[in-house]
Amino acid sequence: MGKRKQLKLGAIIHGVGGNISGWRHPDVPVDASVSFDFYKRQAQTAERGKFDLAFIADGLYINEKSIPHFLNRFEPLTILSALAAVTSRIGLVGTLSTSYSEPFNVARQFASLDHISGGRGGWNLVTSPLEGSASNFSRKNHPSHGERYEIAEEYLDVVRGLWDSWEDDAFVRDKESGVFFDPEKLHRLNHEGKHFSVAGPLNIARSKQGQPVVFQAGSSEAGKQLAAKAADAVFTGQETIEEAKAFYRDVKERAAKEGRSGDDIVILPGIAPIIGKTEEEAERKYQELASLVSIENALNFLGRFFEHHDFGQYDLDAPFPELGDLGKNSFRSGTDKIKSRAKELGLTLRQVALETATPRSAFIGTPEQIADTIQQWYDAEASDGFIVHTHIPNDLNDFVDYVIPILQERGIYRTEYESDTLRGNLGLPFPLNRNAAKPLQRETESAI
Amino acid sequence: MGKRKQLKLGAIIHGVGGNISGWRHPDVPVDASVSFDFYKRQAQTAERGKFDLAFIADGLYINEKSIPHFLNRFEPLTILSALAAVTSRIGLVGTLSTSYSEPFNVARQFASLDHISGGRGGWNLVTSPLEGSASNFSRKNHPSHGERYEIAEEYLDVVRGLWDSWEDDAFVRDKESGVFFDPEKLHRLNHEGKHFSVAGPLNIARSKQGQPVVFQAGSSEAGKQLAAKAADAVFTGQETIEEAKAFYRDVKERAAKEGRSGDDIVILPGIAPIIGKTEEEAERKYQELASLVSIENALNFLGRFFEHHDFGQYDLDAPFPELGDLGKNSFRSGTDKIKSRAKELGLTLRQVALETATPRSAFIGTPEQIADTIQQWYDAEASDGFIVHTHIPNDLNDFVDYVIPILQERGIYRTEYESDTLRGNLGLPFPLNRNAAKPLQRETESAI
Repeated sequence: MGKRKQLKLGAIIHGVGGNISGWRHPDVPVDASVSFDFYKRQAQTAERGKFDLAFIADGLYINEKSIPHFLNRFEPLTILSALAAVTSRIGLVGTLSTSYSEPFNVARQFASLDHISGGRGGWNLVTSPLEGSASNFSRKNHPSHGERYEIAEEYLDVVRGLWDSWEDDAFVRDKESGVFFDPEKLHRLNHEGKHFSVAGPLNIARSKQGQPVVFQAGSSEAGKQLAAKAADAVFTGQETIEEAKAFYRDVKERAAKEGRSGDDIVILPGIAPIIGKTEEEAERKYQELASLVSIENALNFLGRFFEHHDFGQYDLDAPFPELGDLGKNSFRSGTDKIKSRAKELGLTLRQVALETATPRSAFIGTPEQIADTIQQWYDAEASDGFIVHTHIPNDLNDFVDYVIPILQERGIYRTEYESDTLRGNLGLPFPLNRNAAKPLQRETESAI
Repeated sequence: MGKRKQLKLGAIIHGVGGNISGWRHPDVPVDASVSFDFYKRQAQTAERGKFDLAFIADGLYINEKSIPHFLNRFEPLTILSALAAVTSRIGLVGTLSTSYSEPFNVARQFASLDHISGGRGGWNLVTSPLEGSASNFSRKNHPSHGERYEIAEEYLDVVRGLWDSWEDDAFVRDKESGVFFDPEKLHRLNHEGKHFSVAGPLNIARSKQGQPVVFQAGSSEAGKQLAAKAADAVFTGQETIEEAKAFYRDVKERAAKEGRSGDDIVILPGIAPIIGKTEEEAERKYQELASLVSIENALNFLGRFFEHHDFGQYDLDAPFPELGDLGKNSFRSGTDKIKSRAKELGLTLRQVALETATPRSAFIGTPEQIADTIQQWYDAEASDGFIVHTHIPNDLNDFVDYVIPILQERGIYRTEYESDTLRGNLGLPFPLNRNAAKPLQRETESAI
């Protein structure tokens, strides 16, 4: 690896708080999950903080026990496209599942977002953890974990192939001769695979950044392998610096084995900072948030990770129950962690449920303390940056106003955007078109 | 029917002209089909003209012979969402096919657009005319015309059912008690049909206008029947006032047979006005546009309507060839018309190809002449308004600056928006939630 890039940051925008009872906080607007004005303000705040990207999470199944934000929220591609019109530099990344959609439609929509935003689009590829999703898509069964990743790998290959339908200089557009494009620079994909047959070509050109940036969000073995092979960035969940370092090294080494440079894949764990003027104020804020969660809601939330398992049947204050393979086919890496942590620390069900609902992370404290922890993780190669998830909307303002300036002062975070594309800001290489006979010489390159 | 509503208008936004060689016109920006700035300016111009809606057409298959605008263009839902952020009153309607997508995804995306825009979203339901589409969606065969409409009817029923998952007052959001929603007002669809099994509920609430407005764009028998039964509006193509009157009467009568009021379905033929200060200038503009089309391009364009048929094999100046059933499974109503017109008037292939590429309509002339023709069609109940397709971008400005004021002066077109929803401006009733035990009493109603 060459000189290390600066820290990268993303901001998840959640309408009424990403955690289960955050909407009850007095500062949270209760209808924010479908308020465009709210999303616009949050994205503009993140842009003010020079964040690399705004991130919209997603899911394809809800039931009566789902957390409020999931019940009623914007669909990622539509809200990101709207945000593209009211921002100018920040990247716009959204979750979309490869298990319940058509690669042709998805390739088009992300390419279209990428053009609307002038090269700021990104796709967070997921495989849908929730079993219930199948019932919304005329399917008898939710594919198994292994099958979902097999589908995802082929799906991504199809989407990337479609994105390269047109070479970068295919559109001649000569009014005089009437030649709109060079037919030799139009490529039909003709993909015939196990899961998909897609001829192409796609009816949209490549964007300024070549292709949308591809995130991968699963942290299971299969998820890590797909990320190492094909993703530009990884959105992961690591609770301790040790875990994060191990994950980071693992993915970068896997990427090297796939013949890629470690610099070509950006690893961003999610963090949920709680900021106080003093340590005590931060702790008070954490306690206030935790106090909003009822034990019933915490059990429901926990159940969602374990294939909608009903935890109401157990003694709350007995040790966390033995669950066997439950959870393996949904959020595998997350459920494995919950089980092993409960066993290791001898936690009760009540403790596990409440901790899962309001995790106590290393990112609670004063702006200086949070900046220290961020720098510590970054310097230790536990991450290339973070996806910041704030519990209440004002926390994003506080992060931008109080934490960002410290990171800038220390020289590990930008004071101005380096590029007007997401790929450029993340320091990722421009992807050459797979169909181009020879790479287009860029002027800056040939001048060297 | 009660007092007739005022004239309704939509504006199709095409990047480089909707016709085959319009991009060659000196006034057309060649890269406009993926230029957000261009789309934004066009939508804002239409909004300045108090248009009911901006319309984005679509297709799912291209080949080397497709017209330039189709080769490289925005996907409708993404561009409409972006336009929602830079407009405030105009409706935003986009084409989406029921043959190659999942109702759950489509219901969500239109509902999301509807929330982003504050109740201005609309879906133009099509069934995909082009055989080649199947090859982009892992299908062996393109469904037959009859099957496509059977699928479409069930699909629309599923989407509307999903849109009604939450009653309008389902979200209680009481911070004190921690009750986010009333579970009695959440409804699972549990649809089990011939083509789809969709449980729901949808993870987004109804919008300010209840449901997005549903357009139907097919004008075949099956298309008219679906429109009469279920659509809020019809986008049709009728070349003469007589044809348009017959179509209008037919659909309104079919709607009455389905137990609906004729006022509850708005019929909007597409028109392509060419405006000149004088009749001569308008004719010159028409000739200039027509002269940009080469005969090869015109034959390619014609072929697209007939399942990509190669018309290069025939004598250009012999009578239009006998084609049998060709075209029945694609743009059925359009291809029937081309065939019968060619036979009736004894046209050659060359004449048919050039006329199809640059149709000579009744809407070419001075602003007064165009306003006269519009009023004539409207007064004769040939339409409830029009979808305006302009050949070159400046024509939309001219329409807004010179034709609209005449229509306003005559009292048949609004001078200000009546409503902030698309449904409100189109004069369509608010759709009650199918699951509501009893309709919510609106204050304005109960006061009567």
